[in-house]
Amino acid sequence: MKFTGSHILSITQFKREQIDQLFAVADRMEPYAHRRKVTRVLDGAILGSMFFEPSTRTRVSFGCAFNLLGGEVRETTGFESSAIAKGESLYDTARVLSGYSDVIVMRHPTSGSVAEFASASRVPVINGGDGSNEHPSQALLDLYTIRKELKHKGRAGIDGLRIAMIGDLKYGRTVHSLCKLLSLFQNVHLTLISPDELRMPADIVESLRAGGNTVVESDAMESSISHVDIAYSTRIQEERFSSKEEASLYRGRYRLNQAIYTRFCEPNTVIMHPLPRDSRVEANELDNDLNENPNLAIFRQADNGVLVRMALFALILDVADEVDRHARDVNWYTERRF
Amino acid sequence: MKFTGSHILSITQFKREQIDQLFAVADRMEPYAHRRKVTRVLDGAILGSMFFEPSTRTRVSFGCAFNLLGGEVRETTGFESSAIAKGESLYDTARVLSGYSDVIVMRHPTSGSVAEFASASRVPVINGGDGSNEHPSQALLDLYTIRKELKHKGRAGIDGLRIAMIGDLKYGRTVHSLCKLLSLFQNVHLTLISPDELRMPADIVESLRAGGNTVVESDAMESSISHVDIAYSTRIQEERFSSKEEASLYRGRYRLNQAIYTRFCEPNTVIMHPLPRDSRVEANELDNDLNENPNLAIFRQADNGVLVRMALFALILDVADEVDRHARDVNWYTERRF
Amino acid sequence: MKFTGSHILSITQFKREQIDQLFAVADRMEPYAHRRKVTRVLDGAILGSMFFEPSTRTRVSFGCAFNLLGGEVRETTGFESSAIAKGESLYDTARVLSGYSDVIVMRHPTSGSVAEFASASRVPVINGGDGSNEHPSQALLDLYTIRKELKHKGRAGIDGLRIAMIGDLKYGRTVHSLCKLLSLFQNVHLTLISPDELRMPADIVESLRAGGNTVVESDAMESSISHVDIAYSTRIQEERFSSKEEASLYRGRYRLNQAIYTRFCEPNTVIMHPLPRDSRVEANELDNDLNENPNLAIFRQADNGVLVRMALFALILDVADEVDRHARDVNWYTERRF
Repeated sequence: MKFTGSHILSITQFKREQIDQLFAVADRMEPYAHRRKVTRVLDGAILGSMFFEPSTRTRVSFGCAFNLLGGEVRETTGFESSAIAKGESLYDTARVLSGYSDVIVMRHPTSGSVAEFASASRVPVINGGDGSNEHPSQALLDLYTIRKELKHKGRAGIDGLRIAMIGDLKYGRTVHSLCKLLSLFQNVHLTLISPDELRMPADIVESLRAGGNTVVESDAMESSISHVDIAYSTRIQEERFSSKEEASLYRGRYRLNQAIYTRFCEPNTVIMHPLPRDSRVEANELDNDLNENPNLAIFRQADNGVLVRMALFALILDVADEVDRHARDVNWYTERRF
Repeated sequence: MKFTGSHILSITQFKREQIDQLFAVADRMEPYAHRRKVTRVLDGAILGSMFFEPSTRTRVSFGCAFNLLGGEVRETTGFESSAIAKGESLYDTARVLSGYSDVIVMRHPTSGSVAEFASASRVPVINGGDGSNEHPSQALLDLYTIRKELKHKGRAGIDGLRIAMIGDLKYGRTVHSLCKLLSLFQNVHLTLISPDELRMPADIVESLRAGGNTVVESDAMESSISHVDIAYSTRIQEERFSSKEEASLYRGRYRLNQAIYTRFCEPNTVIMHPLPRDSRVEANELDNDLNENPNLAIFRQADNGVLVRMALFALILDVADEVDRHARDVNWYTERRF
Repeated sequence: MKFTGSHILSITQFKREQIDQLFAVADRMEPYAHRRKVTRVLDGAILGSMFFEPSTRTRVSFGCAFNLLGGEVRETTGFESSAIAKGESLYDTARVLSGYSDVIVMRHPTSGSVAEFASASRVPVINGGDGSNEHPSQALLDLYTIRKELKHKGRAGIDGLRIAMIGDLKYGRTVHSLCKLLSLFQNVHLTLISPDELRMPADIVESLRAGGNTVVESDAMESSISHVDIAYSTRIQEERFSSKEEASLYRGRYRLNQAIYTRFCEPNTVIMHPLPRDSRVEANELDNDLNENPNLAIFRQADNGVLVRMALFALILDVADEVDRHARDVNWYTERRF
């Protein structure tokens, strides 16, 4: 895959070469995302942000990423305003909406719908999540975060990574996609911690092992997080269970807090989570007493999402090498707390 | 009517002179809409997009048109967020909201509401659809499309046009408005094809005939589309019937597909539709097997909507002659599929 | 308080010095709000507009104010799209969303929620209304309007102001906040007109009197508005009562119209209202026959909101002295009706 003009529908499109290219561009977006510089390289371009299913943080993250490059955003949220209710096909929706913008981000509740839309779109489409299927920019920002956190600790790459994934590994779309991306690397050691009923799908485990990586499955957390670089916690995907009662059998099963971290983890183990974390007392998979722990990387993950999405836009629209030529200083107050 | 500073509330405001002026400006917007150039003539201007009734494509089309001229868009969608629920009059809403922007596009479910709003607005207002009453930019983009499609076939103007309108001619707001616009031209030959219960309102037919145009009414499609330049198909306006059952008596009555087109139409007959087309099996007024037919103009219609709306903004805000002076090259990938 | 980098959560943050500073900047915003000039001082900056409770006019007013300074706006409206439903804490929401923008405006139905959000935000937060608690920009625009209206009548300041507040003084958040701001001034004479059940909370009255101001309470309107500079009318806050029936006991109790105004008020008494006014026949606290009265300042209030919000942004982001250096002429039609 070359990026220019491409749809981004699935993480299976990515080889290591593209990932290296994407992450190198993402690194160069930092001065703009951190408001040390302003660039207007996409001044006049329009992003069509088509969220047929709501998702505030993904939508706003993509929108800000496009604004930070200088472009405009036109948005749709929800179905109520959609012609689909009047019998319009995705083909027609795509043909019409793709006449309005230079690139489209689309979220939709139905698996495969974004690919179907993309096949009729006249402009590049990024999948912002299609049901239980794919959410490639989330997996990419997770991998980018792993790489960056390891780098801060003096580690050069992702090969040899030791990572534990904790919680709902059956329904968690983000851990599925992250596992697929990790298959591209060497000697990854994965510890998959879940209730027996919520184990990682067997085909994903098989594929990891076939690539020469080590996979250990467990239903006990404490004993399994002692020798990992990354502890990746997840929320029980309540909305995917047949009932709230069924989901509540698992919520709160695995709880990481500062005391457990201190007792069981290596000193520099990085804590990740795709967010939102469920902070209600009956779930609380990552306790608030971790908020001051410098290894809690969950908000750096969200920040990295802006960098990765800026890089996707810059590469798809072929302006990655033009960004700095349209840069200038920032006029306004930009200090950040913390 | 001169455009500068005017409200655009009804197609009855337009004479041939204004239509010629509008379409000439729309033609000049093409390099910007097709991303061959960028203009920033409205950099700093604000469009208030007030959609008290949802309509994704109309809203996004207007918003993109304004962005393409360099302006910003502030939006409202739906009623839930409206002061109207607290007893505010349209007069007050208009006085307040018109202090926030340079021009307003408004859609509202009640006939006449946009005109009432405009009478209290301090800035120009464009009617984006007021219930069953008017939707002038739709009629203008339809007429612009007819003119452009005929031109591609070597025909100089709209006088002498032969057009068939097919389907729900009773409730279809767009065909009503288009007929009124066609009354401005000479020797138009209209074939109105509908079930007897869904015929074009008599006053519109009368007014067309009074202007010297020919109108034939029929309830049979195949025999009536043999000698037309344009076959304009419409959706059964399900939401206007007293019940879904009543609407379903008519959905699917007229279906145009490639086989029928080949057998009955002249080779270059242009197919139009105001969109959305109802592609569900029980309706399917325009079959998907027409998608590869180069005479299917339905998506060109949607694209033309951006040009016509850019032209409306440029004329109302008196920048039509300034657009090119604020033009520059495009930095980013702009190839379009198809 | 210095403005640069500060949260704006409550009018209790303001001393006379800050108010003077804010209003001086607001005065200087007028050429931009009135479209005599354009400034792009915040070109590249992003406002996060987080309206977890709908409010069209407040949201659009803040958004336009930011656009008028040259910045972009990313918005969220409503709760349906919120991670809060999945158990996310306000702390997490704030940490994530504050990575996306340079400043945030937030509205939320729960008292205190905006302050809680701000304590975790990495960028400055402006309270756009948190339930029955605070809505500081509304109180500031009211005070700014009073100052400006008095100035037009040749009065130099707010000290010595005579003001009547009329209607639902128990639930009306705006009159509470305005009273607190008026406590900063000398020799203010307040007449509080309400049904006995809807009187101004005692602590606010006490605090006004403790500051040396005069407060008179009454349940009769006509006899109480004879000697005031400002008659500030309010809507019965229907949504705060236990039932519509209870609210309807009070709606329509106090109605100001032109006949009453002519008979009872001094010739230049200014009429204000926080809007929306309830124009339904059973309420009608300010009759439409006042619309031509030049002393009806209710729409000037709304216009002043843009100036005050521009000034807040300019001061918080430390660009108040840069605005004019990024100014240029306006290209487009800017005449305003009335």
